[in-house]
Amino acid sequence: MLSEELKNLSGEEVRQLIREGKWRDATAGVASGFVQANILILPRKYVSDFMLFCIRNPKPCALIEVLDPGVTSPVNSCRNSDIRFDIPKYRVFENGRMVAEETDIANYWREDYVSFLMGCSYTFENALINSGISIRHIEEGKKVPLYSTNIACNSVSGIDVNMVVSMRPIPYKDLTKTIQITSKYPSMHGAPIHIGNPAEIGIEDINTPFLGDPVTIRENEVPVFWACGGTVYNYVEKLKCSLAITHAPSHMYILDVKDDDFREY
Amino acid sequence: MLSEELKNLSGEEVRQLIREGKWRDATAGVASGFVQANILILPRKYVSDFMLFCIRNPKPCALIEVLDPGVTSPVNSCRNSDIRFDIPKYRVFENGRMVAEETDIANYWREDYVSFLMGCSYTFENALINSGISIRHIEEGKKVPLYSTNIACNSVSGIDVNMVVSMRPIPYKDLTKTIQITSKYPSMHGAPIHIGNPAEIGIEDINTPFLGDPVTIRENEVPVFWACGGTVYNYVEKLKCSLAITHAPSHMYILDVKDDDFREY
Repeated sequence: MLSEELKNLSGEEVRQLIREGKWRDATAGVASGFVQANILILPRKYVSDFMLFCIRNPKPCALIEVLDPGVTSPVNSCRNSDIRFDIPKYRVFENGRMVAEETDIANYWREDYVSFLMGCSYTFENALINSGISIRHIEEGKKVPLYSTNIACNSVSGIDVNMVVSMRPIPYKDLTKTIQITSKYPSMHGAPIHIGNPAEIGIEDINTPFLGDPVTIRENEVPVFWACGGTVYNYVEKLKCSLAITHAPSHMYILDVKDDDFREY
Repeated sequence: MLSEELKNLSGEEVRQLIREGKWRDATAGVASGFVQANILILPRKYVSDFMLFCIRNPKPCALIEVLDPGVTSPVNSCRNSDIRFDIPKYRVFENGRMVAEETDIANYWREDYVSFLMGCSYTFENALINSGISIRHIEEGKKVPLYSTNIACNSVSGIDVNMVVSMRPIPYKDLTKTIQITSKYPSMHGAPIHIGNPAEIGIEDINTPFLGDPVTIRENEVPVFWACGGTVYNYVEKLKCSLAITHAPSHMYILDVKDDDFREY
């Protein structure tokens, strides 16, 4: 399917393609206008701590919805969906280490699993694109580059996690507008957390991302960094719980709610 | 102390007065510019459910901070404070029924208690006042009128709670500006949830509030309703846990963080 066609589908239409096994790619630029979510699925005993982690770290981990234990269908953010099948690619972790990538997680599911849906930067990317600001990783057909930083998240139960950020090169002439636009989506990571010199936030080599692909940064551009839901990968590594499941990086859960529902006025 | 003097004190200065027993009144208009919080203190076993309640109902119950079990001093939102002494008046509930009003809660404190701090409408009241929109209950020296409504909160663990709202009469000419200003504080209840006819949201008699005092509504004014942290009173009544502690209505916890810290841009 052409990217223009995918862009114009609804969240439900893309989920249907995924569930039928017809589409398994990264979701940037797909179902434009529909919110995409980071997900983390944890056994019930770890739920209270992770809720508190999200409450204390809303920039990387803003909660869109938390499902009841064992429930596989979101109640508020999308209908006619099953979180075990409707994401293009999953990662499965045992004791903090990735053990598998899967295209569904039916075989892993347990009645005490709780699913967390968290905001994703693709929401403000749509807004930037609509304002004429191009997104390099979409232009170049790559996955958004993510970096682990030296920025300490607020701790819960002694779990110390550094924040993961996403990076987009922005032309100097568009910097102010970029900050203004992304500020309107505080529950989708909002305004940048850092602008410029990557070393300031502990990034040694901008060409070697922690996850995703490196992208071109041009002479007239500055690297701009946003808090990222990829922080859950650092959390899961530290948590070392028996089993945890996430989306694969850049392979998000596409919902029915719209970007506009999360715009502040 | 004159109200003008109280208005110009810092959060820490007012807490010091309270801790020394020199001041015990409702906090509207006090320490202007400093955030005031609704509080709820619950035994640890009830914490996960109430966190989820707040996540699912951010309009009435937006979390500012959740303290670790047994911790009595907020880490991020105010320093040099002890939540057991620094609120002018507390309410103590046993099995959902109020059993005492107290000026400190030292005798009730247990190591497994968790304190929740939640946003309060006094933040946007300051912003309205600064824009020349008068707040009737402050004008009349009364407590803000709160009403229980027919608006169902999103449920957690089978606890069904109706939303409590606050009401301020606003002149028709200021209605648009009022919505614009309060929209800037989404984590402090944000925009109104209802404007006009109280019966629409299940309020039978506007002159008989659930909590607080009735205020004058003039010919050229419309009653405007905001989601309210007083919703915790309905939650506690339904929860029926052995012990729960809140601030007394209108007697809030005054923090060090500023209203501006919660303004969205």
